[in-house]
Amino acid sequence: MDDKENENDLQSISEVDLIKRITKSFKNKDESTILDIGDDAAILKFDKTNLAISQDILVEGVHFDLSYVPLKHLGYKSVVVNVSDIISMNVKPSHVLVSIAVSNRFKIKALEELYEGIKLACSYYNIDLIGGDTTSSNKGLMISVTCIGNTESKKITERNGVKEDDLLVVSGDLGAAYMGLQVLEREKKVFEVNPNSQPDLSSYTYCIQRQLKPEARVDVINHLEELKITPTSMIDISDGLSTEINHLSDSSGLSFHIYEDKIPILEETKKVCDEFKLSHSVAYLNGGEDYELLFTVSKKHEKKIDNSEHLSIIGSCVKKKDDNCMITSLGQKININSSGWDSFNK
Amino acid sequence: MDDKENENDLQSISEVDLIKRITKSFKNKDESTILDIGDDAAILKFDKTNLAISQDILVEGVHFDLSYVPLKHLGYKSVVVNVSDIISMNVKPSHVLVSIAVSNRFKIKALEELYEGIKLACSYYNIDLIGGDTTSSNKGLMISVTCIGNTESKKITERNGVKEDDLLVVSGDLGAAYMGLQVLEREKKVFEVNPNSQPDLSSYTYCIQRQLKPEARVDVINHLEELKITPTSMIDISDGLSTEINHLSDSSGLSFHIYEDKIPILEETKKVCDEFKLSHSVAYLNGGEDYELLFTVSKKHEKKIDNSEHLSIIGSCVKKKDDNCMITSLGQKININSSGWDSFNK
Repeated sequence: MDDKENENDLQSISEVDLIKRITKSFKNKDESTILDIGDDAAILKFDKTNLAISQDILVEGVHFDLSYVPLKHLGYKSVVVNVSDIISMNVKPSHVLVSIAVSNRFKIKALEELYEGIKLACSYYNIDLIGGDTTSSNKGLMISVTCIGNTESKKITERNGVKEDDLLVVSGDLGAAYMGLQVLEREKKVFEVNPNSQPDLSSYTYCIQRQLKPEARVDVINHLEELKITPTSMIDISDGLSTEINHLSDSSGLSFHIYEDKIPILEETKKVCDEFKLSHSVAYLNGGEDYELLFTVSKKHEKKIDNSEHLSIIGSCVKKKDDNCMITSLGQKININSSGWDSFNK
Repeated sequence: MDDKENENDLQSISEVDLIKRITKSFKNKDESTILDIGDDAAILKFDKTNLAISQDILVEGVHFDLSYVPLKHLGYKSVVVNVSDIISMNVKPSHVLVSIAVSNRFKIKALEELYEGIKLACSYYNIDLIGGDTTSSNKGLMISVTCIGNTESKKITERNGVKEDDLLVVSGDLGAAYMGLQVLEREKKVFEVNPNSQPDLSSYTYCIQRQLKPEARVDVINHLEELKITPTSMIDISDGLSTEINHLSDSSGLSFHIYEDKIPILEETKKVCDEFKLSHSVAYLNGGEDYELLFTVSKKHEKKIDNSEHLSIIGSCVKKKDDNCMITSLGQKININSSGWDSFNK
């Protein structure tokens, strides 16, 4: 195969570049379209109401493995990942549509379990399920979720509002969901060799829970509201910290310097990294699915953020372009390439 | 396998009943939720704006066959089928989100073709593409489209507004898309036997076009606006006339009597039916994908509808329950069972 043919392969392109390429000639005209492709959600404006809308698709064998993901958890998580996209616009989610395509390998009871999880998530996040489609597939299960949030406030936070010297803040802790995945993948292999094995997963509880039942940080946007802080930009960490930092950087034309010793990572997560002989930085920089919020705020809010137990200042924004890096505890500067999860280049 | 196990199989249930079963315990609470699961689209109300939202999922091998469906046509059709759902609420579509999951069998150029068709549809129907997701799949292509329309008017038409004696009206003509599919399926088989065959499809142009490049009848809702007619209920014909009549009937608790000689079916479509030794009624009653509008109007509008070249009165609404039937030209009464297309029971 020559180079020209290779260039036409899906493996040769990232998801982001593919979307840019196939949608570059679309020109939007409707006056209600405030923000379209390229952020966590689109923004439409009707009268006083701003709507945030996002759509995701989850595919068996690519995004989830039913040999260790219970269907109820999967239903819950499929709503959460979309809720997280709306929250990262600083908007509270209100409605979802869920479509599934499913092979006849599945029983009706299995789908009832899936919807039990969807219902739990709707109930927890105060969301109405308003529609969707149910159809058959030739192979496996696919779930497509559209999530809608609405607000009358002007506090919508896009990716591109970052300013020089802004602080970079992350909620919660990072890397655990990725390490949970490593544990589950290992146990799957053990089970394949010995189906009678009884794994003791008690020392991995947190990591596994972060992988199987993540939560969207609606509490964080409520907390920011209480603190009277409107972030200048925000994104959720679905594909790994380095990828998301690069997204914020691409949208603003600025760069970020982050500090290794400021990154929030729990002792349990570190221990699992050590057990798997993985550098901690692989888990928090490249591992995804933590669904924490990554955002920038004006320096004037430093004290308020410092006093918050949910939030960590991990770095700041610099004017230079293409200079995203992590400063290690020894003062070394490490370039952060976008090397998070990408479904076309696993 | 005993009966109890069979009852748990997806093949034992229709799509409509499956959706009812898996969503029956969901309770919606948001005051903006006007209409949820069970119509062509959901309706949300924010201030003066009513939003209609629908979501569909199309799966390779179930909803389309790429051996005879060009990708550009597929892109166009995937938007049209969702536009049609919004139009059947008497609302004009304004925005779409398109998500695709695609295996690496596809080249980037192929996806560009798909999006070329999506762009054409957006341009033709004045719709903005505002988002979506692009991801990989293990096998084949899946397309999930969310379509949004907005209106300040009160003319939203649900399925359940039918009144006794209302006239049942259909736009355009029926059965051609289904016969187009029969022609394409036959040509595929011929091609498999002899890849050098040069088919002459000139006498099937209309039917093939109706299958490959259907249009949503936005012109019909504009026409009804001009005529100052607000339908009492409306649905689009995606799964065949009999299925859609049954949906209107289920939603209202009333029945419909239709007249065989009033059903609009073109000579070309009849000829193709004859060639395939299929009864005309199979094409117009059970064949789907015409995307014509089926609606009810008060009897007072009879003259206006009679004068319209786009519209045919095919029957009327009667008070009795479970009495949907077609009266033949010989005066026989034929029960119309819901036997249109259902992806779980092909």
